[in-house]
Amino acid sequence: MRMYDVIEKKRYGRELTKEEIDFFVKGFSKGDIPDYQVSALLMAICINGLTKEELVHLTFAMANSSGKLDLSSLKEPGRYIVDKHSTGGVGDKVTLIVLPIVAALGVKVCKMSGRGLGYTGGTADKLESIVGYNINIPLEDAIEQVKDIGVCLISQSDKIAIADKKMYALRDTTATVESIDLIASSIMSKKLASGVDKILLDVTVGSGAFMKNIDDARKLARTMVDIGNLAGVETKAIITSMAEPLGKNVGNAVELKEVIEFLLSDEESLYSNTSNDLKEVVFEIAAYMIKMAGLGDDINQNKKDIFRCIVSGKAYEKFIELILAQDGQVCDVYMDWVEKELPMPILKDSANYLKEIHAQNTGVIVSIDSKKIGEALVCIGGGRIRKEDEIDYSVGFEFLKKTGDFVNAGDTILKVIYNDKEKFDLAFEYIEDAIVIENMLPEVSNELKNKSHILDIVE
Amino acid sequence: MRMYDVIEKKRYGRELTKEEIDFFVKGFSKGDIPDYQVSALLMAICINGLTKEELVHLTFAMANSSGKLDLSSLKEPGRYIVDKHSTGGVGDKVTLIVLPIVAALGVKVCKMSGRGLGYTGGTADKLESIVGYNINIPLEDAIEQVKDIGVCLISQSDKIAIADKKMYALRDTTATVESIDLIASSIMSKKLASGVDKILLDVTVGSGAFMKNIDDARKLARTMVDIGNLAGVETKAIITSMAEPLGKNVGNAVELKEVIEFLLSDEESLYSNTSNDLKEVVFEIAAYMIKMAGLGDDINQNKKDIFRCIVSGKAYEKFIELILAQDGQVCDVYMDWVEKELPMPILKDSANYLKEIHAQNTGVIVSIDSKKIGEALVCIGGGRIRKEDEIDYSVGFEFLKKTGDFVNAGDTILKVIYNDKEKFDLAFEYIEDAIVIENMLPEVSNELKNKSHILDIVE
Repeated sequence: MRMYDVIEKKRYGRELTKEEIDFFVKGFSKGDIPDYQVSALLMAICINGLTKEELVHLTFAMANSSGKLDLSSLKEPGRYIVDKHSTGGVGDKVTLIVLPIVAALGVKVCKMSGRGLGYTGGTADKLESIVGYNINIPLEDAIEQVKDIGVCLISQSDKIAIADKKMYALRDTTATVESIDLIASSIMSKKLASGVDKILLDVTVGSGAFMKNIDDARKLARTMVDIGNLAGVETKAIITSMAEPLGKNVGNAVELKEVIEFLLSDEESLYSNTSNDLKEVVFEIAAYMIKMAGLGDDINQNKKDIFRCIVSGKAYEKFIELILAQDGQVCDVYMDWVEKELPMPILKDSANYLKEIHAQNTGVIVSIDSKKIGEALVCIGGGRIRKEDEIDYSVGFEFLKKTGDFVNAGDTILKVIYNDKEKFDLAFEYIEDAIVIENMLPEVSNELKNKSHILDIVE
Repeated sequence: MRMYDVIEKKRYGRELTKEEIDFFVKGFSKGDIPDYQVSALLMAICINGLTKEELVHLTFAMANSSGKLDLSSLKEPGRYIVDKHSTGGVGDKVTLIVLPIVAALGVKVCKMSGRGLGYTGGTADKLESIVGYNINIPLEDAIEQVKDIGVCLISQSDKIAIADKKMYALRDTTATVESIDLIASSIMSKKLASGVDKILLDVTVGSGAFMKNIDDARKLARTMVDIGNLAGVETKAIITSMAEPLGKNVGNAVELKEVIEFLLSDEESLYSNTSNDLKEVVFEIAAYMIKMAGLGDDINQNKKDIFRCIVSGKAYEKFIELILAQDGQVCDVYMDWVEKELPMPILKDSANYLKEIHAQNTGVIVSIDSKKIGEALVCIGGGRIRKEDEIDYSVGFEFLKKTGDFVNAGDTILKVIYNDKEKFDLAFEYIEDAIVIENMLPEVSNELKNKSHILDIVE
């Protein structure tokens, strides 16, 4: 078999066989097929597409390109290991909140997370804003940790689906990232190689997500769900809005602070203070994870259990347990709002400056463009342009107002936490551009405020 | 400017600007842009195409990617330097016959030729079957030689259109060769960089040519003629048939023998013995070259001059002059049919075996597939699979019968000249497959025999 013929076939839009796909994925993983041949094939795939069969073969070939994780030692009768994956966005700290909750409720979770790139953040970076947190523990130790405390959260392993890692690096420089087929097989190859029984996907949609419109998001969700189910791994997808940044805070340490606040909520604050969009997404994802794990078929009952788990402090305890298990440092702090001393993660150095951004005019915030906010974060050093870039964990944004909120001219919409005044100036343009305030009728404004962030469920 | 954005633009089928095309051609030539990015762009170009403007910009950028040849010292008032280029095929020895003829008639020719690859042959290889012939003389010496004897025939210079050379090597391994746009700009960039005043193209069509059907050939011809004329270089294209191999012999040394025979023809043999298709194409191309050079506007009169030039022996004299000028070895040989001693090029070692291939049944030869014959030549070692392969100059085929000829079962159709019996067996299958004999009415057979090989002229 020759790579030339495989490329030529796809160039003319013909269907590749399983053998042809296996040949190129194996050859590329081993370094036998050069990058320039693979990038030509990837471009042909982007333009001419893949059939469902090709897509399944490609995903399997990548999933099998290196060792699979063996989670069999974690299995219990009637229980399922569930993985949760988000297609990413701005302010997306859902994993950090959901994992301690479901682990506290008995769901075993062995999760690998990625780093941020461009305007999208990464869970691995957010965790690393805690002093000492070791994101790179060996896979065997990670499994032992799940046995001990029910949860681990490590970075994406190099040993899993190696072909995907190599291919993603190539796509990233050849304008072949934005392909629903390739995104789906990239995500699902890693998930299938991670050895779980079931997969719950959070497919984000909006300017700050990969998928810019609901049709593409539905197509991506459907594609991934089909691949998972064809692989015998039950897969569901929840489509959530990433039109504005999720929750109140955007950054690394600042998002971790929001996670802590969320997990420390009492009944009242969980009803009133918490950001609606974040709360809605967290409850939905966590409830589905519990159901898929075999711990509760009734989604509404699960949500009640989640509520109790948070306000009882059990979710926060699990969160601290997770951090300690992975060498993260904590100290005891007296907290006014719970009226006692609690262990708190110690965050890496804090930022030097804080500036408030005020509303230019009176009206209702009709949109906060998440992509522009993500780009503003990159400007102040909180995100990466290239993979190898260092990031400043301490910088970020705290939103006091979100879409649907009424503001008077001069009201503070957000606070910018930063270290470099020149970088702030660069970011300021993106921020100003991101926020749109308009005069509108109160009903329309309420509609905007109460719009659900759960857009669809694909199963 | 980023290569990523250029790739992305073409991926979505948008038109690239002159600046974007210059950026990528320059960056690629200098080695600043990696192969894997260029191959992705080339695939996007193959699938999404180029506009006429993009094509002209690309051709110019490649033509200007390294030094242009300066032929100004060869110029004379009222005369034009004409280049002749064939898109290649099987048995195509037209350049080797036409150049001595037109040079003997006063047309100055400084020609660069390529090597064979796959089933298509190359003029450079055919010349190298002469002992000592130096195909790689420096460009300055080549120009001096044209001043002295009116003609030189050297291999494609590395110093001319370097971007095209690099890009072709990449296309060759990424299934992006067969694109009319890229073929046109590749050919025309070399021609425009070769410093000539006018260009005559021989666009071949048929199984053994790049263009498989007349529509594609017309499109390629039109594209190249338009590019040339837009560059201010008068360009014409003659579309010729490559359905069957051109002339009687296919190989390197054996084709050179046919060239010698052709150039040594007397009146009678030029009327009767010479292969009709080869004669027709040679006369047409040579007549147009003379016209374009400013030496004779009447094509029919030019053909008469060509006839006289051959039978007078002047064309053959020029051929020997060319070989001697480039260090080719010749010896005096007494030739029966001219009843005198004549200088003859000394060919590299001859082959050891000869086998006749006979007609399996009685009827008319309706087709001889040129691609299959080209592939049979590769089998016996007379062609290359990869650029770096060595070739056996001595092997080849001599056809006694061509399309339209009547044969009795058992008649010899061709002779195979070879060195390796196992390789012969491989070639035999291709040869058997290539030749189709059918029963048909004499009128139909005559029509087949007398069909013109000049299919169209594009100017």
